[in-house]
Amino acid sequence: MRRIEKELKDKQDLKKILKDGKYTIISLCKENEPYIVALSYGYDESKHALYIHCAKEGQKIDFITANPHVCGIVIEDNGYKEECGQTYRSVVFRGKMEVVRDIQEKKYGFDVLLNQLEENPNTIKNKFLKKDETYENSGMLRVDIIDITGKEEKAESQ
Amino acid sequence: MRRIEKELKDKQDLKKILKDGKYTIISLCKENEPYIVALSYGYDESKHALYIHCAKEGQKIDFITANPHVCGIVIEDNGYKEECGQTYRSVVFRGKMEVVRDIQEKKYGFDVLLNQLEENPNTIKNKFLKKDETYENSGMLRVDIIDITGKEEKAESQ
Repeated sequence: MRRIEKELKDKQDLKKILKDGKYTIISLCKENEPYIVALSYGYDESKHALYIHCAKEGQKIDFITANPHVCGIVIEDNGYKEECGQTYRSVVFRGKMEVVRDIQEKKYGFDVLLNQLEENPNTIKNKFLKKDETYENSGMLRVDIIDITGKEEKAESQ
Repeated sequence: MRRIEKELKDKQDLKKILKDGKYTIISLCKENEPYIVALSYGYDESKHALYIHCAKEGQKIDFITANPHVCGIVIEDNGYKEECGQTYRSVVFRGKMEVVRDIQEKKYGFDVLLNQLEENPNTIKNKFLKKDETYENSGMLRVDIIDITGKEEKAESQ
């Protein structure tokens, strides 16, 4: 086996990885101090943005208030191959992250998120998201993607 | 199902996750610009450090030359549970990353790395790592871990 590394150039491939992913890992920095966090998300193709549900306070919020620029990765893990290494497809994006405060956009963001993550999004919505109050009390972030690149590492028989 | 989030406090649990992981995602920053990269690694308990094999040049090297402070994550992904969310155990570490230049330490680092990643590390060593030249031409990084924290998100029947 040998490992083949190649750049994924087709934007549709990159968007597919973003649509299929369940969580992203995001790099933030403040005064040259790096920070990292794993977050569930939903990708909205029309806005080319990610919606993320999170607590209303915490380190993430402190970091993006100081510096909204983020860099994130979504990995489609295809396993470790002996004598070859980790095989995967990944998308790395740079973007700006901001707190969503408008309740209509929060509702929209939850739709994006639940449609991507859940098999029965409406069941969850009817159970947990019936009142405006629930949206008001929930934190939501949006990452506007500035650019994305993709990479594939795969194994091939020699 | 409901999701339970808890801090993993037992240092042995955290070290176990570092020992079992195949790759880590690392956040770097330079002049307040964040960067992210996924890398295979081996964890050396005696030095409380990660060894990473990489190219001798590239963005990672530029970033750590400007700022050696990194923040990384190792995720033990336990899958997405409907109506509950992503379940996983994770370790987040802060540390300093530097380029390993000493050939003896490179050999040691490759041992750590291959012992963690491969089922038959000696086969690989005999095949690819017989000459000093190979070590000289290979890039290696070490992350000295300053602190680690761990988190567990799991599903529990209500």
